[in-house]
Amino acid sequence: MTTMDTRTGRDGWAAGTRVYVENRRGRLPAYTITEELVREALRDAPQPLTLTVRYADEPDFAALAEAEFFMGSGFDTRRLADHAPRLRIVHCTSAGVDQYLPLDWLPAGAVLTNSSGIHAEKGGEFGLLALLMLNDRIPEHATNQRRHRWHRTLSSPIRGKTVLIHGVGALGGAIAEKAKLLGLQVLGTRRSGAPHPYVDRMHGPGDLRRLLPEADFLVVSCPVTAETRGSIGAAEIALLRPEAGLVNVSRASVVDYAALADALRGGRLAGAVLDVFEQEPLPPEAPWWDVPNLLVIPHVSSDNPEDYVRRSVALLAENIGHLVAGRPLRNVVDPVRGY
Amino acid sequence: MTTMDTRTGRDGWAAGTRVYVENRRGRLPAYTITEELVREALRDAPQPLTLTVRYADEPDFAALAEAEFFMGSGFDTRRLADHAPRLRIVHCTSAGVDQYLPLDWLPAGAVLTNSSGIHAEKGGEFGLLALLMLNDRIPEHATNQRRHRWHRTLSSPIRGKTVLIHGVGALGGAIAEKAKLLGLQVLGTRRSGAPHPYVDRMHGPGDLRRLLPEADFLVVSCPVTAETRGSIGAAEIALLRPEAGLVNVSRASVVDYAALADALRGGRLAGAVLDVFEQEPLPPEAPWWDVPNLLVIPHVSSDNPEDYVRRSVALLAENIGHLVAGRPLRNVVDPVRGY
Repeated sequence: MTTMDTRTGRDGWAAGTRVYVENRRGRLPAYTITEELVREALRDAPQPLTLTVRYADEPDFAALAEAEFFMGSGFDTRRLADHAPRLRIVHCTSAGVDQYLPLDWLPAGAVLTNSSGIHAEKGGEFGLLALLMLNDRIPEHATNQRRHRWHRTLSSPIRGKTVLIHGVGALGGAIAEKAKLLGLQVLGTRRSGAPHPYVDRMHGPGDLRRLLPEADFLVVSCPVTAETRGSIGAAEIALLRPEAGLVNVSRASVVDYAALADALRGGRLAGAVLDVFEQEPLPPEAPWWDVPNLLVIPHVSSDNPEDYVRRSVALLAENIGHLVAGRPLRNVVDPVRGY
Repeated sequence: MTTMDTRTGRDGWAAGTRVYVENRRGRLPAYTITEELVREALRDAPQPLTLTVRYADEPDFAALAEAEFFMGSGFDTRRLADHAPRLRIVHCTSAGVDQYLPLDWLPAGAVLTNSSGIHAEKGGEFGLLALLMLNDRIPEHATNQRRHRWHRTLSSPIRGKTVLIHGVGALGGAIAEKAKLLGLQVLGTRRSGAPHPYVDRMHGPGDLRRLLPEADFLVVSCPVTAETRGSIGAAEIALLRPEAGLVNVSRASVVDYAALADALRGGRLAGAVLDVFEQEPLPPEAPWWDVPNLLVIPHVSSDNPEDYVRRSVALLAENIGHLVAGRPLRNVVDPVRGY
């Protein structure tokens, strides 16, 4: 990201700022990127601001051809490759970028940035909720409620129990912070193995299998990459204790859901809280709805409707400022690591 | 509780300690009061210790006739009135004592003590869990799961939202403490209206209706008494906002469940978490299982299986020590207030 063209430099952005924003129809209002929000965030960017806000099914190809900055979610990478040669930053409102990989479609000189970090407050809180739900056997109680069955399973307090966070990034770190509030022991894995202030013991991904038997709760919060896809399979699930529970706030493909369902049906795992599925919306005929002790969450764990778009736009605005000033950008997706 | 007979006094307990413990069949092992636990707790009581541990359906009337201390749950008050004239302390392992009221059956010179306080750690944690579940619409998600329906309702973080705790005693206070950990505003009611370190604004019960519209979450944690029975009726539920949620960890009779179900079905309340029911076990034909956005919890919110009995026995042991020393007893149920 050090390539500069004639319009950028340390002395400022000479020719204004050309931004193309794409919304998708049918999403909740909280996800709409409005012109007003973008103008507010970019009030300090080089002027004039040329802003195009379009639905994905009504593209403005002329504006795309001139755009230096693109922002959207679930966008058509082919369209950007073919029609947006001047792009410098393609910013996605999600943290996960698996659907955009490999990055061979990126126009020359452009980078993909994600919104990692904006989900941390809400997602950390949801992680705490999921841990408490697993500790208090809420997936089991919900299953029994479906069956009109009164069955009392008592739980001791969560203090002192062990959570293993598979993939300590912005989201996993926020979950670790909340877990420490309630006195859990926090184990973590991440690629670097580097320490984290809220993780008592950090390990590299290679230690995962050794750590699984220690966990009362396994939180899956890694990005999905070639390394992490399928990393929680039947063998890993078998290493968890029968009283343990699993939370997935990453991507479905990291966990073998068929093996997970088998373990839950067989009583070899106490509960699961899943916020992500291969196919979303999850269709009515999907098997996961009826798996005992499995709680289906409709991919809402980490999105705060009050500031989701505002914070994502702010990240783009910050990076435009960095680009103009010749500083390094934040949240640039590494094409090799894939996150 | 100042009556002394010849066997007690400030100089010690002259004639040993006679304890009668009653268990009920069919309860979870965590509730069994074992001879070992009682002997361990009473190692400092005046010796010899005469200890009788019986199931309720196999009473030892000779031992009851001599017993000074009784401990049990769900016991037959008539039996104690008729067969246990020497009782000084009748100790119940629950916090709620509504099933023993009025106290006209207590042998002369005896008091009823409850186990209020031993549920605080686990119950406070469950209260936090219930608040987070209501904030993240878990009862709604569980309802949608029953229907195989994917419906995304987003929630903002819980920080700054308002919980109203109806009945701030040991349990409600523990819930307030946990709520402050996550930055909620905590309003409370209690009979005395006296301040509490974790309640931002405490009120008397008379202010309840005025406070209800302020609440994002209503926690019902009062004892059931003549004053509180039915205190959350249709009119009170109607004062809650449609986005609000309700938790009941008190007794079912405090809340009008039919009115609550109506509000949930009509979308005039977002969710409810109920740990208590008029009839327990809740029978398969009970209507509450299928009420939308209502989560049925099988009365497990506040019982820690690891120390429930141990802590309750410790309370009795402490009170025996107080009685011997002529000090005031803890957790004596007031016959007039009813808790």
